[in-house]
Amino acid sequence: MAKEITDRSENYSQWYNDIVRKAGLAEHSAVRGCMVIKPTGFAIWEKIQSQLDSMFKETGHINAYFPLFIPKSFLSKEAEHVEGFAKECAVVTHHRLMNNPDGPGVVVDPSAKLEEELIVRPTSETIIWNTYKDWIKSYRDLPILINQWANVVRWEMRTRPFLRTAEFLWQEGHTAHATKAEAIEEAQQMHEVYARFAEDYMAMPVIKGAKSANERFAGALETYTIEALMQDGKALQAGTSHFLGQNFAKAFEVKYLDNNNKEQFVWATSWGVSTRLIGALVMTHSDDDGLVLPPKLAPLQVVIVPIPKPNGVILEHAEKIVAELKAKGISVKIDRDKKNRPGFKFAEYEMKGVPVRIGLGMRDIENNQVEIARRDTKEKTNVPMDGCADYVAKLLDEIQDNLFQRAKAYRDDHITEVDSYDAFKEALEQKGGFIKAHWDGTTETELKIKDETKATLRCIPEDDGGEGKCIVTGNPSKQKVIFAKAY
Amino acid sequence: MAKEITDRSENYSQWYNDIVRKAGLAEHSAVRGCMVIKPTGFAIWEKIQSQLDSMFKETGHINAYFPLFIPKSFLSKEAEHVEGFAKECAVVTHHRLMNNPDGPGVVVDPSAKLEEELIVRPTSETIIWNTYKDWIKSYRDLPILINQWANVVRWEMRTRPFLRTAEFLWQEGHTAHATKAEAIEEAQQMHEVYARFAEDYMAMPVIKGAKSANERFAGALETYTIEALMQDGKALQAGTSHFLGQNFAKAFEVKYLDNNNKEQFVWATSWGVSTRLIGALVMTHSDDDGLVLPPKLAPLQVVIVPIPKPNGVILEHAEKIVAELKAKGISVKIDRDKKNRPGFKFAEYEMKGVPVRIGLGMRDIENNQVEIARRDTKEKTNVPMDGCADYVAKLLDEIQDNLFQRAKAYRDDHITEVDSYDAFKEALEQKGGFIKAHWDGTTETELKIKDETKATLRCIPEDDGGEGKCIVTGNPSKQKVIFAKAY
Repeated sequence: MAKEITDRSENYSQWYNDIVRKAGLAEHSAVRGCMVIKPTGFAIWEKIQSQLDSMFKETGHINAYFPLFIPKSFLSKEAEHVEGFAKECAVVTHHRLMNNPDGPGVVVDPSAKLEEELIVRPTSETIIWNTYKDWIKSYRDLPILINQWANVVRWEMRTRPFLRTAEFLWQEGHTAHATKAEAIEEAQQMHEVYARFAEDYMAMPVIKGAKSANERFAGALETYTIEALMQDGKALQAGTSHFLGQNFAKAFEVKYLDNNNKEQFVWATSWGVSTRLIGALVMTHSDDDGLVLPPKLAPLQVVIVPIPKPNGVILEHAEKIVAELKAKGISVKIDRDKKNRPGFKFAEYEMKGVPVRIGLGMRDIENNQVEIARRDTKEKTNVPMDGCADYVAKLLDEIQDNLFQRAKAYRDDHITEVDSYDAFKEALEQKGGFIKAHWDGTTETELKIKDETKATLRCIPEDDGGEGKCIVTGNPSKQKVIFAKAY
Repeated sequence: MAKEITDRSENYSQWYNDIVRKAGLAEHSAVRGCMVIKPTGFAIWEKIQSQLDSMFKETGHINAYFPLFIPKSFLSKEAEHVEGFAKECAVVTHHRLMNNPDGPGVVVDPSAKLEEELIVRPTSETIIWNTYKDWIKSYRDLPILINQWANVVRWEMRTRPFLRTAEFLWQEGHTAHATKAEAIEEAQQMHEVYARFAEDYMAMPVIKGAKSANERFAGALETYTIEALMQDGKALQAGTSHFLGQNFAKAFEVKYLDNNNKEQFVWATSWGVSTRLIGALVMTHSDDDGLVLPPKLAPLQVVIVPIPKPNGVILEHAEKIVAELKAKGISVKIDRDKKNRPGFKFAEYEMKGVPVRIGLGMRDIENNQVEIARRDTKEKTNVPMDGCADYVAKLLDEIQDNLFQRAKAYRDDHITEVDSYDAFKEALEQKGGFIKAHWDGTTETELKIKDETKATLRCIPEDDGGEGKCIVTGNPSKQKVIFAKAY
């Protein structure tokens, strides 16, 4: 079989595009910037969704659904928000088409112009806080802990499947609280949930921290972020959680009566992750042979390939193994195709990232064994057929752990601490990855670094390591912060 | 407590709106025609979604996601489709806002006009068949069995929560087949799945049948429908499944090479149900005291109310019951509120449609019993505390069944067979419901009836009962068909 995937070392960006296409994750659509999420890609999203949804529910949240459209005037109610979001977006101006009077096809009916234009939501703070206004009267109505699974649109000029698309799928939590402390606690709690999900399910190590003022969400007082490192040494922001203060409550006049019967503005958070996580998954674990998926998020965990092709005896044994695996909650299928050769199939399943492959031929059956191949290391082992389901269950855990450890070793190896701007530039160019350095806390210095090196301030991490002097200005710095080139 | 819900007999339409609002299902939003689906309403949708999704997967379907936007030109590629769908829709014409040069706020940037307008999908046949074109080359690529969960927008002028809204949530299946027979079988299979879901989960009896040519989906050769009857005697179309022939394949040039290496057009189906089902649920079972939900779709199945309020001893016993119910997969909560009285709480839970309420006071504990109230009949029974979880599990099944039988008795009582147009009009005015009558098979007669009586042809049912003469024209009729006034 011809090699279908470009090597990472040759062209990393092409490698990513090849995997997305060849593993059947997504493709471009006829609409500029919008992707089609294909069945395999969507099955990964369903896994992500189902796990996150249960983590949100465990922390007391419930789902609801708010309108796709936002009246244009809402966007300008919160001053910073409009600067950050209102500009590149899909604007609905009319509500009717009509037959083209001058030829075939349809045209916009000029008489069906909307009084006020509607924006396809780029994020839903404004429409949701306009709704909360009617829901919140007293402290007894608080907190409100709502999440929404939805599509959003941001008119991006340069798009890449999953990483940056005009339309994407996401969840957005929007909570309302009586006190500042409670809202900060909520934002931090969801930050922890995201970090736990990234590490325990995506097997993707993340650095937790706060964004600088310059990188904060438009309208937030504090943005917490989890930052992951891709295999090309670029950072990817994987999930953010915002403490919004009373900004949206003030913009939409959302007040409550406290238990002293005094009117107070409500405190807010919002938090979200998106289909971008699928791009992060691909770029964290995959290799030059295709997709590598952590077992906990793999739509198909095990495939059984009859060698050299299916027959009655092999299928009978395979079905017994399937029953045992399914009883353990492991997803598995038998490849019943009779046309292609085992080598072709092996390459296919490697490309699609199935974590464990079981080879089963007549000789294996005679020897009462199966051949088990793991996708992460490509190792093969012969295992007794009896009890092989136990072996596979353990192996899936081991793969999950190995992927995390491997990604963590790479990530840790790509955190460089520097004490001068020259060392900073050198590390960035030579090695890439995260650069830890002292910074004077000003947006001016941050933008100078971005301007001169293309590295952005990814986060102000929790483990700070103490005071020092800014690598650019020499001014006092409270702690080292994390820079990187980023997606 | 003041009665909060209008009686059905007084004002049916207001009764529906009261339940939707008071049970916390949905409310109007700031965007004309778009609703906010509130947490309780959305939790019902999650139950519907999860059950249908597993039924789709059991029948071999997988999920994917296609763009929200459809290029305007796509809509006019299938001639009938554009007539049925292209007219009232949300049209995106621009992709940027800018600060208002003449004052505060933002305005549409006139320089950011799209070359081709984009339509927010009213349904996705066109964008999906444009995609399938690249996926289908040979008979080996068929069938494609894909479903999508999505939001869609149809610019409705008169809207009502769930029943008719500009934006709604739904699923749309889009399948591609090598043969006509296989596509028809698929459309019929999904028709059966919808009927089974309606009856077994929603406890809502339906009449299965085909639509007349006039009532078919725009672009379909055959539309199968399930028709339910609401308590005001009006019909509600609850789910449709379409055999699309080769219309979309021809419009988008989707061909495959058959096993004789001959080019053939692909055969298509599509099928969908929407958040409208929540409106159907409300109107099938609820009463003048509020929402009544079938246990299989109730987000909360059991509530335990301490009498007169919670104390340590009561909570200890309640938690034991909770553990037993949860072990049986039953959702349950304890009302821990200390402020409101039992009578108030009872009315609240009745309004919200919780199927079973358990009352638990100190005297009950002394007598080793609990009081169990069922929402459907309002009956109360004292039951021994030991084994009460078994009792509740059985009771939930009984309620599910009783709701179906009750709705079926009402529905059956409201099917009137008539042999003359006068009897038709009289039955429609006096009794409402479904009217079964002979019809000559012409659109002309169908529209005359609609025009004169407001009754539409709901479906041509499967159990036909033989030939006869049309009640309007006296011309030959192949079988009786079903008419009703409808939502």
